[in-house]
Amino acid sequence: MVNDTKYMARAIQLAKLASGHTAPNPLVGAVVVKDNKIIGEGFHHKAGTAHAEVHALDQAGEAAKGATLYVTLEPCAHYGKTPPCAKRVVESGISRVVIGSMDPNPLVAGKGIAILEDAGIEVTNDVLSEDCIRMNEGFFTYMQTKHPMITLKSAMSLDGKIATKTGESMWITNESSRHDGHILRATHDAMLVGVGTILADNPSLNCRISRDDLYESIIGNCDLVDFTSETEKMNDGPANTNAEIVNANIEIVDIHQPDVIILDSLGRTPTDANVFKQGDRKVIIFVSERCSKDRIHELERVGAIVKPIATVPVRKSKATDVLVDIKKLDINAVLSELGVMQYTSVLVEGGASIIASFVEQQLFDKMVTYVGNIIIGGAEAIGAVTGNGIASLQEAPNLTFTSVDIIDNNIRIEAYRMNREGEYVYRNR
Amino acid sequence: MVNDTKYMARAIQLAKLASGHTAPNPLVGAVVVKDNKIIGEGFHHKAGTAHAEVHALDQAGEAAKGATLYVTLEPCAHYGKTPPCAKRVVESGISRVVIGSMDPNPLVAGKGIAILEDAGIEVTNDVLSEDCIRMNEGFFTYMQTKHPMITLKSAMSLDGKIATKTGESMWITNESSRHDGHILRATHDAMLVGVGTILADNPSLNCRISRDDLYESIIGNCDLVDFTSETEKMNDGPANTNAEIVNANIEIVDIHQPDVIILDSLGRTPTDANVFKQGDRKVIIFVSERCSKDRIHELERVGAIVKPIATVPVRKSKATDVLVDIKKLDINAVLSELGVMQYTSVLVEGGASIIASFVEQQLFDKMVTYVGNIIIGGAEAIGAVTGNGIASLQEAPNLTFTSVDIIDNNIRIEAYRMNREGEYVYRNR
Repeated sequence: MVNDTKYMARAIQLAKLASGHTAPNPLVGAVVVKDNKIIGEGFHHKAGTAHAEVHALDQAGEAAKGATLYVTLEPCAHYGKTPPCAKRVVESGISRVVIGSMDPNPLVAGKGIAILEDAGIEVTNDVLSEDCIRMNEGFFTYMQTKHPMITLKSAMSLDGKIATKTGESMWITNESSRHDGHILRATHDAMLVGVGTILADNPSLNCRISRDDLYESIIGNCDLVDFTSETEKMNDGPANTNAEIVNANIEIVDIHQPDVIILDSLGRTPTDANVFKQGDRKVIIFVSERCSKDRIHELERVGAIVKPIATVPVRKSKATDVLVDIKKLDINAVLSELGVMQYTSVLVEGGASIIASFVEQQLFDKMVTYVGNIIIGGAEAIGAVTGNGIASLQEAPNLTFTSVDIIDNNIRIEAYRMNREGEYVYRNR
Repeated sequence: MVNDTKYMARAIQLAKLASGHTAPNPLVGAVVVKDNKIIGEGFHHKAGTAHAEVHALDQAGEAAKGATLYVTLEPCAHYGKTPPCAKRVVESGISRVVIGSMDPNPLVAGKGIAILEDAGIEVTNDVLSEDCIRMNEGFFTYMQTKHPMITLKSAMSLDGKIATKTGESMWITNESSRHDGHILRATHDAMLVGVGTILADNPSLNCRISRDDLYESIIGNCDLVDFTSETEKMNDGPANTNAEIVNANIEIVDIHQPDVIILDSLGRTPTDANVFKQGDRKVIIFVSERCSKDRIHELERVGAIVKPIATVPVRKSKATDVLVDIKKLDINAVLSELGVMQYTSVLVEGGASIIASFVEQQLFDKMVTYVGNIIIGGAEAIGAVTGNGIASLQEAPNLTFTSVDIIDNNIRIEAYRMNREGEYVYRNR
């Protein structure tokens, strides 16, 4: 059992090497072990390419006979772009399979295991399952809801302000917080902002960290030498050809640049905005029926994918003297469309009114808040979540704080939205 | 050295038994050790009564000759309400003194040590000094500034709101957070609120936890049996008469009820308010020159101590149409007066505009924030710190986060205000 955990942890490390690259597929890692030695390793690199089990079994070759396979997700039982892995496992002569998490699709879950057990293979399930599910929370959400998992990101002062009353906001949080924010970008399929953010700051909205930064954060210290040493330690001696394989695998994995999604009713995004100058990634702009055809064509000419989408009426605000008649984009429709486009995870970065739209309709799964070591104060300074707000505490989204850390004198708070039964929404909504 | 730390930790535990009761004096604990056995223990119970060293040396009696004395604060060198402890230590025949922290008064610091060293006693200083200073941070602030240490307390949603737009605020944080808030009350000399809080909620503003709750939180698990066992463990056998002494000492220590301070320019506190019905503690009301003599007498008749104090002009707010001509109480003058009244620590509980007054003038030392597991949102919902707020981020108070914990799915954030050199304000302002 101790070894099961050890080898599953290794499989998780391998899986995470492809972070950001596999969508709409999950991260999966696999390790083949015989006589307490790793004889094969692999991970899923990219949708449409070989699954983790195949890489690991290929490396193990004939030696896989009688060995144990560790895999972070139940081997698939269906023909997709590649043949079913469960079948390949049976053919390899593997005698035991240790699985981290079941297939999240309840209609499919257990079918891979059934194939293995029918072939007389011993199956152990749910080893480090929490870790295996968490690293694929976007995939799990997407499989169950056909919507991407939504993570809200906020950077605020200790008293919940995101700018001073004069609008100064650079910087409320420090470099370490912002660095961590880029880790979030690298691990989400796409990021979403309102056009207000584009007009105010003209941001590049790219991911400005290195692959090593990402690996250090999500996998731990794993440059090539250490990673190989780790394998050697597990084997009480040098691993076969693992070092080379890991080398080769890492070679192909560069930092993931999330696609950019802009909520922009009127199509006001400037065609020379910095978001269009960041190389090979998609920029998707959701507009309302009030955006002109001409404007849509202009945006398409600079590479944007423009999606007209339904609107919903905005409730009147007490704070304005004049009754407004504004409609805003329907977040639910946006999420459905993003689901159709096979986005499994989207990071919402603001502004405060965009975040409020997701909060008010409880259309989010997770919130990451960075707290700077300052107090701003002021009734007029803008808060982290604006919009209408809730009237009664009963209406408030119910959160579970999963981690809170001081990072270099800022605070990072991670919270998940829970359903009425107190369960994680992303796993069971 | 390991033993030095062990016995100093014991002295700190003893000191904390009197938490809330010694002001304006510090908490002090003392342990006399000979041949690796505790032969005397004591702590300072209350201003005007015997110091910790005296209790411990009394218990040790003749056996103190050649023993080591552990004391959390440098023994005093002056005649106050009691004779100087340094002299008493010399007379007892103690051969070594281990000290936790120096006297905070730079004019006095070192004089106690000098008396000891002149008498040929070996002195070791700064053992667990951080803990010894922290437990007396109010005393240290007061000795150095003649103002009480100011702790701001806030309870807010994850997005920094203290009520919904309709004013609902019970409860944003949970029972565990509120329990912890009562620990804060028990460890501060007084608590301060604005009259708005009195008029809105008519709170009792008392400390509703038991002595055991307090001890568990600030000392660790220390009911009498465990506490004795701890001593026994230290001695590798039953302690002499320590169990009885500790028994006797705890008997006299009940939970501390902090005095109540109300900022109330016009003297609007109702004479039948609940704050007046909580037994033996002071209620101090600061009023401006605009409060009538009659009103002052009415408040005095129900037991209030009414203090007229200077005012300062309020800056005009952009949010109001009409230019206001309001003056508010001068916080600096309030703090000076509280210093004259010998308050060493004051907990400011709100409301948001009162907290803003302390923040804007940077007249606070520490901030404790409880974060509930909800998001409220809304541009109109009230934030944790209102008032004018800062215009530029450069003006913001600079904080150091010293702890952040998830307590029962709420978050507790403890932060200290730092000076320009990045040092704790309370220790060196």
